[in-house]
This record gives sequence, structure tokens and C-alpha cells, in this order.
Amino acid sequence: MANFEPEHFLWRMEGRVAVLQLNRPQRKNPLTFESYAELRDTFRNLAYADDVDAVVLLPNGGNFCSGGDVHDIIAPLTGMGMKELLAFTRMTGDLVKAMLNCGRPIIAAVEGVAVGAGAILAMAADIRLATPEARTAFLFTRVGLAGCDMGACAILPRIIGQGRAAELLYTGRTMSAEEGERWGFYNRLVPGETLAAEALELAGRIVSGPTFAHGITKTQLNQEWAMGLDQAIEAEAQAQAICMQTRDFERAYRAFVAKEKPVFEGN
Amino acid sequence: MANFEPEHFLWRMEGRVAVLQLNRPQRKNPLTFESYAELRDTFRNLAYADDVDAVVLLPNGGNFCSGGDVHDIIAPLTGMGMKELLAFTRMTGDLVKAMLNCGRPIIAAVEGVAVGAGAILAMAADIRLATPEARTAFLFTRVGLAGCDMGACAILPRIIGQGRAAELLYTGRTMSAEEGERWGFYNRLVPGETLAAEALELAGRIVSGPTFAHGITKTQLNQEWAMGLDQAIEAEAQAQAICMQTRDFERAYRAFVAKEKPVFEGN
Amino acid sequence: MANFEPEHFLWRMEGRVAVLQLNRPQRKNPLTFESYAELRDTFRNLAYADDVDAVVLLPNGGNFCSGGDVHDIIAPLTGMGMKELLAFTRMTGDLVKAMLNCGRPIIAAVEGVAVGAGAILAMAADIRLATPEARTAFLFTRVGLAGCDMGACAILPRIIGQGRAAELLYTGRTMSAEEGERWGFYNRLVPGETLAAEALELAGRIVSGPTFAHGITKTQLNQEWAMGLDQAIEAEAQAQAICMQTRDFERAYRAFVAKEKPVFEGN
Repeated sequence: MANFEPEHFLWRMEGRVAVLQLNRPQRKNPLTFESYAELRDTFRNLAYADDVDAVVLLPNGGNFCSGGDVHDIIAPLTGMGMKELLAFTRMTGDLVKAMLNCGRPIIAAVEGVAVGAGAILAMAADIRLATPEARTAFLFTRVGLAGCDMGACAILPRIIGQGRAAELLYTGRTMSAEEGERWGFYNRLVPGETLAAEALELAGRIVSGPTFAHGITKTQLNQEWAMGLDQAIEAEAQAQAICMQTRDFERAYRAFVAKEKPVFEGN
Repeated sequence: MANFEPEHFLWRMEGRVAVLQLNRPQRKNPLTFESYAELRDTFRNLAYADDVDAVVLLPNGGNFCSGGDVHDIIAPLTGMGMKELLAFTRMTGDLVKAMLNCGRPIIAAVEGVAVGAGAILAMAADIRLATPEARTAFLFTRVGLAGCDMGACAILPRIIGQGRAAELLYTGRTMSAEEGERWGFYNRLVPGETLAAEALELAGRIVSGPTFAHGITKTQLNQEWAMGLDQAIEAEAQAQAICMQTRDFERAYRAFVAKEKPVFEGN
Repeated sequence: MANFEPEHFLWRMEGRVAVLQLNRPQRKNPLTFESYAELRDTFRNLAYADDVDAVVLLPNGGNFCSGGDVHDIIAPLTGMGMKELLAFTRMTGDLVKAMLNCGRPIIAAVEGVAVGAGAILAMAADIRLATPEARTAFLFTRVGLAGCDMGACAILPRIIGQGRAAELLYTGRTMSAEEGERWGFYNRLVPGETLAAEALELAGRIVSGPTFAHGITKTQLNQEWAMGLDQAIEAEAQAQAICMQTRDFERAYRAFVAKEKPVFEGN
């Protein structure tokens, strides 16, 4: 997807890592109907993109994402009937489904605000970095809505625990970056100056690994979400046996014997 | 439920927040067959109570709850047959089910001991505060029983993690308040002098939000417990679309435009 | 299983606690096809062993386990067809299933390295202690494989949270002991000199409790893994009613009344 030129956000390739940035920095990067739809379609297409092995979501102009735009999204929603409302909530949910099912690790690098749907974008990533000043809020309750937005009631508790998630979803309060790191939402805090570089370095390290196998890891993290234990273990036996037939597995073994660093090719 | 006068515990309304206290402080507030049943019925009725938007469980006389009374409950249980035993364990489980399904956020404010079924009452709340001296123990193993009491093997691991829950359930040991906060069982530690005030303040803040939507948040937190990810996201699309047809959603938008604080009405 | 003399690892009884150690300390205790199979069979047999109430996995020669042996396991795997590969991954998964289903609490005491399948052995235990220097890595990705090995994508997220687990599984990086304790993987850090003693002391404390009930606790922790909340609560009502008909429940009550320490007999 090197030549991909989206209309509603920025996209570039750094090697085999796609770098995605929302691009309305003056408004802290709110989402619109159009950017939601284009993001959904992009992550769906990623599942078939042979030249992309990971995605990094970067902030823009000091902020990650301020969520659904009040004027462009919330205003029209207040006038819609159920059919259109459900079409909207399904579109936003489909974005999360597409992120989960795109087969590539996603790293979110959060600076400034990540609120509402912006917090969800971070949540739907696999790994999250943030600056110490980042402010994250699942603030749906503040706009009169429920905390169950785009998978938050299912996913957030599995990341930070049921009790902490409940508090954030009922109150809509800001989670500080320090809380986010303590609670496991953020994997690491990083100064703003090096945030993008560290996110890209981490992505680079991951894509230097066995990318076919990474895709299976992502599939299984999602697939086993609600499986019984014995079923999950059988599912992993099958999934790992598939990976043992890749040439990357053999490459790793040969490199080990030769006392070299393995060079993986994703097959 | 302003005029509700339970026989076996204290009940009062502070605005639209119900305040519930066990009332045998001289014995650290143990439960009896009668108080279990009345609590179960109360939380069941809450699901239909138009004048209650949240519940706060407060300690009494310096303690939260010492669990099933040894004389009033454990003694008779040791003489019962299976039919009666199952009726009892189902009654206690039904109390937790009723708390989960009452449709209102529950805040537990723990001081002193919260042990056995007392620890379960705290666990079955949505948000938990405690004093730094609070002692919480899932001590079923100490009375010769299993850790699987009233949902503990399902719920506790989702709050504090599977490894920490296993240790507490196998050993029955006390979890200190500091551990409880670090592990996500307690959302915050608060001095005894301000515990009740802070719990009520938090409840007040929550009920000033969109209470219909809060009820949907609670429903979805429970409903999606064992759903697959795609199913959970679709469930949230439906649930949030419902909330988008409430007037509270419109009220929030209008307040935002008018640069006012929204006044929610729970519909 | 006092007279059990395994071929591929060490086994001894300390009272009713089985102590298991891998025994290739010069190579940091790697696993082989043979030790995998014998471990699987041993944990399967444990489910029926009347004289074993808990298992402690101890390190040997300063290390816990270095995972599947590169020469003895990985080399032959690279030449196998799918039928044999699946037989292998099912055997390793069956070891975890057997550990989960053996009906006795398992305590892992980790020193030195616990990597690859070694990290999985620790993960599949119920309670984990480690020394401050212990290094734990789910390094499957380093050998060209996916993170979904022996249940890791299902189990690790429930212990340390989804975000932390994703990072460890995608990068294969070492989790320090300090991280492990903060994140809930390790229940406690203990100096190397006292590690074995503390693990045995903890096991001794647990087996002095109601061991039949402990078996039910273990069963329910696994059984309720993917149940809905109401179903889990009903399952616990049934499971606890069973425990209330044990004599250990009565023994605990009588000891309480007599102001003595209960002596449990596991029935």
C-alpha cells in the first residue's frame, strides 16, 4: 500500500511499516463520517496487503485524536432515526473489527488527547506508548451515551481490569498516562520528542521478526477471547503447527546453529 | 424506594442514591439467612425502581461485613442435606446476580473487615473505595470450603488477574488495602473520616450523568463477559444506537453548543 | 506417588507435596520429546493420586527451564510433516491441559531463566514465585513461531492483561522479575537462597487446608473461564454445595466453636 493516498488522513510507508496520522491537528484530530469509513476500509484492505507488516498510529500536532467531531458527527446523529444510527454505530464498530482482524500488529503512540473514539483507537491497537502528559478518556458518558462504544465494555476490562474499566466508563474521567502505565493500558511512557521514533523502532523490531507468525499471534489473541481453556489450547496446537511449516521457522533454526541473527522473510 | 424500610439492614436515600448499610456493627456486620434474602430481593426490586440511580454500600461501626454468621449460618449449614444446601448457595449466588442485574452502578466503601461473603459484596460492586487499613479476605478455604463462592472464581480474576486471584482463593489470606489498590480491586484508598463522603460524592457525580445510559453500560459490562469480540462489538453497536435515541444525548449536544453544563434526566 | 521414579526429571514427596525438578541443569533444563511426554503423563496421573495434594516446580542448578531443546526438539521439528508437527504441538498443549486438570494447586518457583516452554510451565501453574533476577520470556517469535504456544494467547492475557501480553508475545522480550511482580505474573519475589523453602512453605500451608475443596477451586477457575456470569454463579452454587457436604466443612466449624485450629483431612 505504498501508493495508497487516503483522502481523510495521512499515510506513508517506512519500510514495511505503515504510518497513519489523522490530519486535522488544529482541532486535535477529530473523526468524521468520512474518516471513519476510510479508516475502516483501509484496515480491511490491510488484511490483504503484501507490503505492510505493521501499522503505527502517530499523533499529529501534539494530539492523538479527539474522537467523533461534535459538529460533523454528533450534531447530525441527534437528528437521525434508528436505522441510520445503527448504521453509524456499526460503522464505528466495524473499524475496531477491521483493526482486530487486519492481521498485523498495530502500535498506537499517544500524545496530548486520546478521548472518546480516540481512546478507542488506542484501545484497539495491540501495543500502546504514550507521553507522560497524555490524557486518555472514555468520555461517552459526558455526551449522554453509554460506555459500551466500539467494544469498550469488552476490551477495556481485559486490558486494565474490570474495576478500573468500570470507573472510567461510568465517570468518563481522564486516565493519566501514569495510571495508564501502572494499569497496563500503556506499555511504556516516552517523552514527546522521542515518541514517534520509539514507536517506529518498536514496529521495526517487530517486523524484523516472523511476520506470518505475528499474524497468527494476532488471530489467536482475538480468536481465543471467549474460548474455553481446552479449546484454546487445541486451537494453539493447530495454529503453531501451521507456523512450524513456514520457512521462517527453519531460518531461525539454521541461524541459531550458525550463530547468526536470523533473517525472517514472512513465509 | 424512598419509603423502603428493610428489616435486616439500613436503607436511606440521599437524593437518587440509595445508601445501604448492614446493621450488626457489634459483630462486624455478619450476614444471616434473612439478610441475604432481603438483600437479594432488594437488588431485584431495584431493577424497577424509578427513583434510585445508584447504590452506595457503606460500612457500619468501622467494618464493612464479616460474611456469613458462624452461629446463624454456618452452624445450621453443617446439618443440612443437599437440597437445602443448594437452596442456600443459590440464594447467595442470586444476591450477586441481582447486584449485577439491577441496572444501577453500585459503589462499595470498605472499612475494617470485608471477609468471606463480605469480600464478595465488595467484589460484586462496580467501583470500590477502601480505607488504608481495610482488610479483605476471600477466606472460604479457612472454613473448609472452596474459593468458588458466589462467583469469585469467575469475577475476581477479571478484576485483579488470574494469578493473584488464585493465591487469594487457595490461601484465604488477607489482601491489604495497598495491595487491593495496586491490583485494581480498590479504585482508590481514602481515609476513614472521608470514606462515606467520598463514596457519596462519587455516586452523586455518576448519577448527575445519563443514568439510562449508565444502566446500558452496566448491562453490557455483564452481557459481553463471555462473548466473542465481533459479537461484543455488534452488541455495543446496538446498545449505543439505543442510547443515541435518548433525549440525554441531545441534551448533552445542546449544552455543548450553548457552552453550558448538560443537565441529564435519565431518558 | 511416593514411589514414582520418573526417567526424565526429578520427583520427590515432602509430606503430601510433590516436588518436581527438571534435571539437565548444565543446559538450563531444556525439555525433550521424552520429558514433555512424561510430564504430561505425570500430571494426568496426578488427577487420581490420593497421596499428592499440591505440586511445587523447583529450579535446578540456578535455572527453571530453557524451553524446548534446540538440538533435541527444534532440529527434528524443522524436518517434520504436518501430521507429526500437530502430534507434537498437541503433546505440548496436552501437558498444559494436564496441569490445569490435575486437581491440585501447582506452585512454580522460578530462578534464572524461564523461557519458551519454560515460561509456559510457569504460566500454567496456579501461583508463581521468582527471584529478583529471574528472566522470563515467551520467546517463540525469536525462533520464527507465533506467540500462540501451549495456551499463551488465552492464559497470559488473563494473568497480566491483554496489552502487556501482546507486547511480550510479539517481541519475545524478557519480562524482568520486577515487571512480573508488578503485573501479577509473579505473586511474590523471593531471594534465591530462600526460594525453595518459601515455595514449599506456601505449598505446605495450602495442603494444610481443605484439599478436596482446593480441587474444586481449581476445577472452577478453569471451568468458568469462558462462562457467562449467571452460569458461572450457578456453577459455583452447585460446586460449593458439594463442598458443604464434606466433613472438612464440619471440622472447620467445630474447631471454630472449640477455639482450635481446624485439622482438615481432605474429605
